[in-house]
Amino acid sequence: MNPLRIFVDFATSPDVLEMLRAGTHGHQLVFPKTAAASVLARAERDPQFASVDIAFGQPDLESIAEAGQLKWIHVSSSGITRYDTPEFRAAMARRKILVSNSASVYNEACAAHVLSFMLAQSRNLPRSLRTRTANGTEAWRALRSSSVPLSGQTVLVLGYGAIGKRLVEMLRPFDMKFMAYRRKARGNESVPVITGDQLTGALAQADHVVNILPDNPESRHFFNASRFSAVKPGAVFYNIGRGSTVDQDALLAALRTGRLGAAWLDVTDPEPLPDDHPLWAEPNCFITPHVAGGHFEETKTLVRHFLQNFERFVRGEPLLDRVM
Amino acid sequence: MNPLRIFVDFATSPDVLEMLRAGTHGHQLVFPKTAAASVLARAERDPQFASVDIAFGQPDLESIAEAGQLKWIHVSSSGITRYDTPEFRAAMARRKILVSNSASVYNEACAAHVLSFMLAQSRNLPRSLRTRTANGTEAWRALRSSSVPLSGQTVLVLGYGAIGKRLVEMLRPFDMKFMAYRRKARGNESVPVITGDQLTGALAQADHVVNILPDNPESRHFFNASRFSAVKPGAVFYNIGRGSTVDQDALLAALRTGRLGAAWLDVTDPEPLPDDHPLWAEPNCFITPHVAGGHFEETKTLVRHFLQNFERFVRGEPLLDRVM
Repeated sequence: MNPLRIFVDFATSPDVLEMLRAGTHGHQLVFPKTAAASVLARAERDPQFASVDIAFGQPDLESIAEAGQLKWIHVSSSGITRYDTPEFRAAMARRKILVSNSASVYNEACAAHVLSFMLAQSRNLPRSLRTRTANGTEAWRALRSSSVPLSGQTVLVLGYGAIGKRLVEMLRPFDMKFMAYRRKARGNESVPVITGDQLTGALAQADHVVNILPDNPESRHFFNASRFSAVKPGAVFYNIGRGSTVDQDALLAALRTGRLGAAWLDVTDPEPLPDDHPLWAEPNCFITPHVAGGHFEETKTLVRHFLQNFERFVRGEPLLDRVM
Repeated sequence: MNPLRIFVDFATSPDVLEMLRAGTHGHQLVFPKTAAASVLARAERDPQFASVDIAFGQPDLESIAEAGQLKWIHVSSSGITRYDTPEFRAAMARRKILVSNSASVYNEACAAHVLSFMLAQSRNLPRSLRTRTANGTEAWRALRSSSVPLSGQTVLVLGYGAIGKRLVEMLRPFDMKFMAYRRKARGNESVPVITGDQLTGALAQADHVVNILPDNPESRHFFNASRFSAVKPGAVFYNIGRGSTVDQDALLAALRTGRLGAAWLDVTDPEPLPDDHPLWAEPNCFITPHVAGGHFEETKTLVRHFLQNFERFVRGEPLLDRVM
């Protein structure tokens, strides 16, 4: 096999780079003139891209269009928003370019992040960690009884992929009822799947609504005023998908009327929200800054996952996390 | 059977009282002149106590000593500190008085509380919920990589009763290593048990040290400077047992030197800590006000549990959560 040219465009450290070099020994790494700021940042167009075989990172669409040698794109994130259009999918199919993402790298951390939100909500941690209330007082009794156990409650997961599946595994020790919403049931899901019109009924039953929808034209403002008005009164809303899938004015209204009991958001639109955005001031709205997939030595996990896929690619085996 | 006289001394609401009356129909409920402030508060001595058959609450030792009719004490908490002495145990055995506690009522909530602490720590929620850092910045990358996954880590549970067992069940979906410390191994534990001298070695291996020790003369300041100096550097300490089992000066020192990575406490000594106590100001110390066992409609669960035991008592069957 001729040496493959691999375009790598994400920020990394010397030891991770060394790991990448060792794992691609005999092949050639090509770096952009300016490294991308994060795995989610859009890279600048780079002339070297025209002659590479593999792209690992977040290559821009114009570069891909002009890359005559390109055989495989490994996206360095779980979300593939900028590639997820019918035109792009058609072009990749026509040009026989494989596309995979890094979903497996972030699944565990993302699922654990939602679980941490659900338990913090159930145990009322934000309030409990702030108060210094004394045993036996009225305020103390009220605080204790504000903890609503997960057992016996219903969880609806929207966008049931690897993260949703792992979340359900993590919640198995609790006696909960699960439902998953996806565009099309595939029949191999580990929980009951609902589609299309069934959503309204499912929203009315769920105590916990977990939004892991990706960003695409169909999911834009998926959670609008109408969907929020369909939720069970007091339900808790979680978003670790993409901020764009939620109409934030409708979310704010649902929190203010008490229709939603609370919202836990790892993603917003934009990120971060402006300092004067009313969601910051909403007492039952809890926001983390798009860190759900983050974890210790994350780029190592990312590169290890790419290298597993690289070996598969070299041997002509099916890729992990292939999305196109 | 003659009607039984049941002394009930905890604060409750009319509907829960009605539930208690219905479940003890045909028997007689006796209430103290002054209701206790909480399930943990010590009741005042009451002359009516001399003629009761059953005590449900936190009866005081003098009243018990003088209660010639008493056959069964059902303690309204999980902790039985004020009763847990060799003298009291001997007296109960001699007088053939059964003693049960309400452990089952609080297990689920207590275990979930520890789990919420562990996940909040793993996902760095306290910091993530406070910051408004932007994607791609140095601070953001540092925050993301500060999340240490639970999988692959070791948990040591001290005081392995029903709460510890349930906690281990809740942690099963994570690939963790478990160890339990108890005074005597019984052989029926679901995890490897260590005793006595083995503790020092176990402390050196554990990433998470979960203290559920009850308060008794042997456990007082169990976590002292020597034990904290034996922990794995950076370990996280959790306490949902009793505050008295920890030497708080030693805990503070262990946090300040960084020997402990963080401490999550639901119990302290005293409760709450005085406003000028240095643990409040310690950045990696997180305190909730003795709410671990609390949950929605807790007194209902408490009374339902008592009534289950009452039926068993009436039928002469073994009691649930019998402790003496």
